[in-house]
This record gives sequence, structure tokens and C-alpha cells, in this order.
Amino acid sequence: MSQSLAAYLRDKANLVEQHLLPALEREEVPVQLYESMTYSLMAGGKRLRPILVLATLESLDVPIERGIPYAVALEMIHTYSLIHDDLPAMDDDDLRRGKPTNHKVFGEATAILAGDALLTRAFGSIAEAYLNHPEVKPENVLRMIAELGRRCGAAGMVGGQIADMEGEGRQLQLEELEYIHRHKTADLLMAALRGAAYLAEAPPHMLDALTRYGLCIGLAFQIQDDILDVEGDTALLGKTAGSDQSRQKATYPALIGMEASKAKLNQLIYEAKQALTAVGLGDSILAPLADFIIQRRH
Amino acid sequence: MSQSLAAYLRDKANLVEQHLLPALEREEVPVQLYESMTYSLMAGGKRLRPILVLATLESLDVPIERGIPYAVALEMIHTYSLIHDDLPAMDDDDLRRGKPTNHKVFGEATAILAGDALLTRAFGSIAEAYLNHPEVKPENVLRMIAELGRRCGAAGMVGGQIADMEGEGRQLQLEELEYIHRHKTADLLMAALRGAAYLAEAPPHMLDALTRYGLCIGLAFQIQDDILDVEGDTALLGKTAGSDQSRQKATYPALIGMEASKAKLNQLIYEAKQALTAVGLGDSILAPLADFIIQRRH
Repeated sequence: MSQSLAAYLRDKANLVEQHLLPALEREEVPVQLYESMTYSLMAGGKRLRPILVLATLESLDVPIERGIPYAVALEMIHTYSLIHDDLPAMDDDDLRRGKPTNHKVFGEATAILAGDALLTRAFGSIAEAYLNHPEVKPENVLRMIAELGRRCGAAGMVGGQIADMEGEGRQLQLEELEYIHRHKTADLLMAALRGAAYLAEAPPHMLDALTRYGLCIGLAFQIQDDILDVEGDTALLGKTAGSDQSRQKATYPALIGMEASKAKLNQLIYEAKQALTAVGLGDSILAPLADFIIQRRH
Repeated sequence: MSQSLAAYLRDKANLVEQHLLPALEREEVPVQLYESMTYSLMAGGKRLRPILVLATLESLDVPIERGIPYAVALEMIHTYSLIHDDLPAMDDDDLRRGKPTNHKVFGEATAILAGDALLTRAFGSIAEAYLNHPEVKPENVLRMIAELGRRCGAAGMVGGQIADMEGEGRQLQLEELEYIHRHKTADLLMAALRGAAYLAEAPPHMLDALTRYGLCIGLAFQIQDDILDVEGDTALLGKTAGSDQSRQKATYPALIGMEASKAKLNQLIYEAKQALTAVGLGDSILAPLADFIIQRRH
């Protein structure tokens, strides 16, 4: 990864992190619940979804500050999904980002409720933050909320998680694996890009290109995750390497082999950048961000 | 309960129930997830929150059809909260509305995700339904979403559930019990009333009165729940009577005695109706709805 991209990612992650806690409610919130929510929200991570919001606005020549409430809401949703996915009834993970998972620290009941509260706050905080915003039309905020609802709901991220669990321990078709990757990961990335496009009042052809870009990097991200689970390092990953295999999870390397998986990954990144070039965003920060997907080691 | 109120409740519940399934997504939703969501959403119940939305609009001389998407979203949120509250890690209930609880039928993982998907869909469906609505300003929809987020999040319903669990097995102060009742139950009723008021573009004094009414009937509802757990009938309740006592849950009757609980209940209903009378809604359908709270047997 180039020095400048690394600096960009660090800067933007820092900016987002400054806005996470202030976006939560505090008054009337039971202490244990607040601590459980902030434990996971502030546990680090790449902050990729928020960064995509800011990078999209920057690419469209819109002040990135406008995207912060939406960026923060996406990170709340991503965090809730990790908390719930780690639960004993789901993936039963003890370690996340190198720290004990939420339910290991706060207990299952609190972890479930902390996830519920983060999901709820994500939607509420978008509505609050953009109500009476001088630059953002309220109908575009409704479009963002509708988009987010679809991308992280039953036909999106939640559907992907169900399909992922149903697929454990049995041989999947490539089509099924793509359904999982698309919904479990790509949908929320697409929501980041499309939501930012609404904030920027981008025209339809731009929205389409960003959607295509989001789908490609989302699928690539998940294939890279599969590859890292085989080739990666537990210490760097912050979670147990080899866990997919040990729980007989369908992955790209398992299904089509490591070489074909890497070729697919490169093809997707190429397509993502093609989508940008077609609408004049080939030189924007979104292009090196796509490369980052395949360069990352955790 | 009067014949006419019974008919009103039945009619409105039927109307709401016709709109529940059409408000869910179907395409791209895994079958098992869809079945789990609809199992609980269509399991009956009083549909009190949706009815409050429609009754408020009727009282304010606004066509009730305008409230249906919001009413349906509230029922989704109420249903998600029941699914999650019933989980083994939480209240560990086997029976709900006379049927096996969601996780007993679909397993814990699916139950958690079905709740997540219903909560997500609630927010998304509001945004979708009211986007480009001819009678509803988009900024009022954002106010509704912000309100709903606060009332059902960490400082609202989720906070109430955490406090309820934390309080199990120990002696609570009346203040703690009121926190639980207010947030676990009254908040969502207040969201129903206030959301309907935004849809009707009601003036601030009307909004205040409806909030007061909602708080009073919400607290009354929960006290009546406590009373029914002692005096009620398992068959009618659709859940196990006496379960509060057996799990050493703090209740009004346990804390201040049965007689004082009933006096408090009557006082709250009186106050609720006073709030209506003060803004000229004393003869509206909301008045007998308050009485219904103390007359109900399940």
C-alpha cells in the first residue's frame, strides 16, 4: 500500500472515530448497555464503510463533513452485525479484532441488546442529523434510509448471514456462495456508496457506476477474507485463521481453488476501476481504495 | 368493554393485519428467515400500537390510511422486541400468545436474525412508504423516524429491557420499576401517538397532550400486566401466569401491594383522559381506548 493511501485511510478513520461516541445517546441509557455498545464500537477496525462514504463525497467534489452522520451510522450497523454474528447461537466466536467478543465480556443478553440498540441508533441518528440540514434535502435522507434498510435487512445483510449459517457443513454451489458474499458484505458497501451519492445529489449514471464499483469491491473483499483465512496470520487478523476450514465453511478457495480465487479477485478489482473510469472517476481516491482490498493483510 | 369499542378494536386490528405481509420484502429473502419473521408477525396479539396510530389520526380528523405504514412499522418493532425478549439468554420463554416462541420453532440464530430483520424493515419501510407521499412532508417523516429511534433504542425500549433483566432477583426501588415500565412499554406507545401527530401536523400543545396520554396509558398498561400475572389466567394470557413471581421479578403488586397498584392504575387512566379533555379530545376514541387498558383480561 502506498504511503499516501495509508495516510489517507488513517486520517479518515481518525476523523470517523472522533464522531462515533458523540453520535450515541447517553442520557437515560443504562451504564452496562452503554459500555457494551461502546466496547465494540470503539474496538478499532478498518472503518472501511465510513471511509467509503467520505471518499465518495470527496470524489464527487462535495465537502466530506456532509457524510459524517451517515458514515457513523454505517459503522454502528457494521458493529451491531459483528456483535450478533459472534454470538454462541451464530458463529460462536471468542475473539474479534484481537479482543474478547462482546458477549464474552458482557454476557449474551447484553450483547444482543447492544446490537439492537446500535442498529436502532443508526437509523435514528441519520434522521436526527440530517433533519434541517442546510445542504441536504429531506427526501434524499429518506432515500438513504430506504436504501440502507434494504441493504442491511432480510433481503440484504441479514439474509446473507442466514444463508451463510445454513450453508455451513455442506457443499455449496458457486451461486449460493455468491449470494452469501453479495448480501453479507457487498450490500453494506453498496449502501455506503449509494447513500453518499444521494447526499451529493449525483445523477443516475453516477449512482449506477458507484453501485457497480461497490458490488465488485464487496465481492472482492469477501474473497480476500476467504483467502486470508487460509494464508493469513491469526495475530494480524485479530481472529482465528483457519476457522472457516475447521467449521467446514464454504469459501472461494475451497470451491474453485486458490489460484482461480486470486484470478477472480483481480478481475473484480479491474471491473471496479473500469466502472469508475467510465464516469470520469478513474483518478479519484476510490481507485486506490479498490487496490487496498487486495493488498490488505487483515 | 362496550360492544362498539370491541368492534372498533377488531376492525382496526383486521385492517392493520391486512397490511403486515405486504410491507415485508420477499424477493431475495431466504425462505427460513421469511417464515420466522412472519410466524411472529402474524401470531395475533392486540395490535395496540398500530391501533393507537389510527385512533390518533381519526381523533385529529385525518384519514387513517395515512397512518398505515407507520402503524405496520410499529408492529414490526413490537414483534422484534418480543422475539428477542423471549430468547434463552433473556427471559427464556417457551410460550407467547399461546404458541411456541420463535426460537423454539426456528432455533436461536434464526430468531435473533428475524428480530434484526424486522427492526431494520420497520425503519426502511417507513422511509419507502412516505417518500413522495402526497400528503406527508418528508421532514415530518424524518421527525417520526428520529422519534421512533429514540423511543425504541438505548434510551428507550432497549434500555428498559436491560434494566428489567438487571432488576431480576433483587428488591427494586419504585423509581427503578418506573424506569422499566416507562421505557419497556410506555415509550413505544408514546412513539405511536407522537408519530401520528407528526403525520397529522398537529400543533405543539396537541403533541404534548398526546405524549402525556401515551405515558399514562403506557405505565397503566404495564401495571395491568403485573396485576394480570397475579390474578390472570394462563389460557387467556397466552403465556404462563405467575411467571413474574416465580422468577422474582419486581412488580407493582409486589412492591406496593395489590390495592395500591389498582388505585395507581385508575389514577393513571384518569390522568390520561384529563390530558385528552384539555385539548378537546375528551370525546374521541382515545378515551375509551384508555379504559380498555384496565378492562383487558390478556
